[in-house]
Amino acid sequence: MSERKWSDAEFRPRIGVVGAGAVGCYYAGKLAELGCEVHFLMRSDYEHVARHGLRIESDEGNLALKTVRVYNSPEMIGPVDLVFVAIKSTANDALPQLIAPLLGDDTAILTVQNGLGNDEFLAGHFGAERLMGGLCFICLNRISPGVIRHFGHGKITLGEFQRAPGDRVGKMAALFNSAGVKCEAVSDLALEQWRKLVWNIPFNGLSIAANATVADVLASPGLAKLARDLMLETIAAAGALGFAIEESFADFQIDRSRTMGPYKPSSMIDYLAGNAVEVQAIWQDPLERGINAGASLPRLEMLTALLGRLCKIV
Amino acid sequence: MSERKWSDAEFRPRIGVVGAGAVGCYYAGKLAELGCEVHFLMRSDYEHVARHGLRIESDEGNLALKTVRVYNSPEMIGPVDLVFVAIKSTANDALPQLIAPLLGDDTAILTVQNGLGNDEFLAGHFGAERLMGGLCFICLNRISPGVIRHFGHGKITLGEFQRAPGDRVGKMAALFNSAGVKCEAVSDLALEQWRKLVWNIPFNGLSIAANATVADVLASPGLAKLARDLMLETIAAAGALGFAIEESFADFQIDRSRTMGPYKPSSMIDYLAGNAVEVQAIWQDPLERGINAGASLPRLEMLTALLGRLCKIV
Repeated sequence: MSERKWSDAEFRPRIGVVGAGAVGCYYAGKLAELGCEVHFLMRSDYEHVARHGLRIESDEGNLALKTVRVYNSPEMIGPVDLVFVAIKSTANDALPQLIAPLLGDDTAILTVQNGLGNDEFLAGHFGAERLMGGLCFICLNRISPGVIRHFGHGKITLGEFQRAPGDRVGKMAALFNSAGVKCEAVSDLALEQWRKLVWNIPFNGLSIAANATVADVLASPGLAKLARDLMLETIAAAGALGFAIEESFADFQIDRSRTMGPYKPSSMIDYLAGNAVEVQAIWQDPLERGINAGASLPRLEMLTALLGRLCKIV
Repeated sequence: MSERKWSDAEFRPRIGVVGAGAVGCYYAGKLAELGCEVHFLMRSDYEHVARHGLRIESDEGNLALKTVRVYNSPEMIGPVDLVFVAIKSTANDALPQLIAPLLGDDTAILTVQNGLGNDEFLAGHFGAERLMGGLCFICLNRISPGVIRHFGHGKITLGEFQRAPGDRVGKMAALFNSAGVKCEAVSDLALEQWRKLVWNIPFNGLSIAANATVADVLASPGLAKLARDLMLETIAAAGALGFAIEESFADFQIDRSRTMGPYKPSSMIDYLAGNAVEVQAIWQDPLERGINAGASLPRLEMLTALLGRLCKIV
């Protein structure tokens, strides 16, 4: 598999977006605005976006893409240079069929899905050497078909699956930065996934179990302590698996969250809308890995049990 | 204060019931059927019960009291021999005014309220020597005004507040047993309160936090383990406070619960109806006592924080 083209300064990858919800539309929309040829695979919003395009509303400036390359089958897109995977992990079973038509010999796959296990799943189906992973630190919600509301943040942390970053990570990071998306290449993607879980496990979890926005959690002394304790358990699980995260990272994350206001994490939006919640990827999988590595995780275990019941997966 | 009358085999106490919900109506209804002079203080159901009486529906036999002594002010009842307190602990602030008109020099007070702190509250207002406590192990719900549905169980565990049981506990136990209510006198009421919490803390708590009936909790491996872990934490809290409960009591309680089916604990009924939930008495107070005594209670602390938010007391 050739990666040479990724080192070409002029190269603009042809991109296929699988899972064009809020995250997929925001980031790929930015790349389309930059001039990349971006093909969006859509289901529920297909008709609306084909007709009206995409709109991103943000205090940092609105973005309207009037004409969008949108498709309702991957065969109509064909092979691309990069598959951008932003589908919910609860729909991973559909990915082999959705991605296969997009693959050429040297197509890369970048998953920005939440939680653990997604890159391993895709690597198992399509080969580890294709896989990159990205972590999105962003507050946004899809507020209607084709309309994304961006509440703040946006940084992507980008890495290769189980190896050091090379030319294609560098190219994608450069493209994102050129598109106005802060992007940083990292050498240990798995460590960064655990660092992201330090926020997602408490705040996405309590948004459902306590019916609480980020501001609600921080306003309640009991919930704020619980969020921090869940962060410390996540750090302990990561540590048991060999991923060292300093405990002060919990306080940093709590402080960082104070700027978010009454933000509803994506899991809360899904839950309130009656959609599937990523319980396996965000809570169950990290819990099982941590327990197997010998960590003591009573709160994470309790949260996972509650979410399993509330989200009707048990 | 004379207790001599309680040792008289013929003595039938005049009883005033404060808090005539499901529990108050069931037990005092049984005593009324036995021939005791029972005066019910009611608010929302006053009109209906005055007109139609009380009905208890049970597989063990229905009970209809066509004529009930029902009042909407305690002054109309006047001094009684026994005040039977079954009001929700969230309304304790109203008790001093409701009980004072019912007291004579030697009136006893029996509280069968849930959780911790109720007997201490009443002892502080009316004197420790008046106080008895009862623990009700019963499945029942008020299904409409004046109509109680009994799903099973019913035993009362009866004791004096901070002292050994004497004549009046013996008399009340004998009356309940004569009325078909199994009743046992115990020497350590506070220990029995903790033993009752071993069931109430997990099952009442998870009925709200996981939207789960007793059967739902037992059907989910994650929730069933969590219920047992919460029982073990409750036992640890009790132990730290000097109340010895064997750990096998948790398994006994889990097994006992299998006969209950899809029973909704009273807290779940309250929560779903938008009524106040006894968060302070059942979770917050036990948590604080346990933590102050040095117990490690991560799950109880988490459950209390979630319930505080869900029941809007934080």
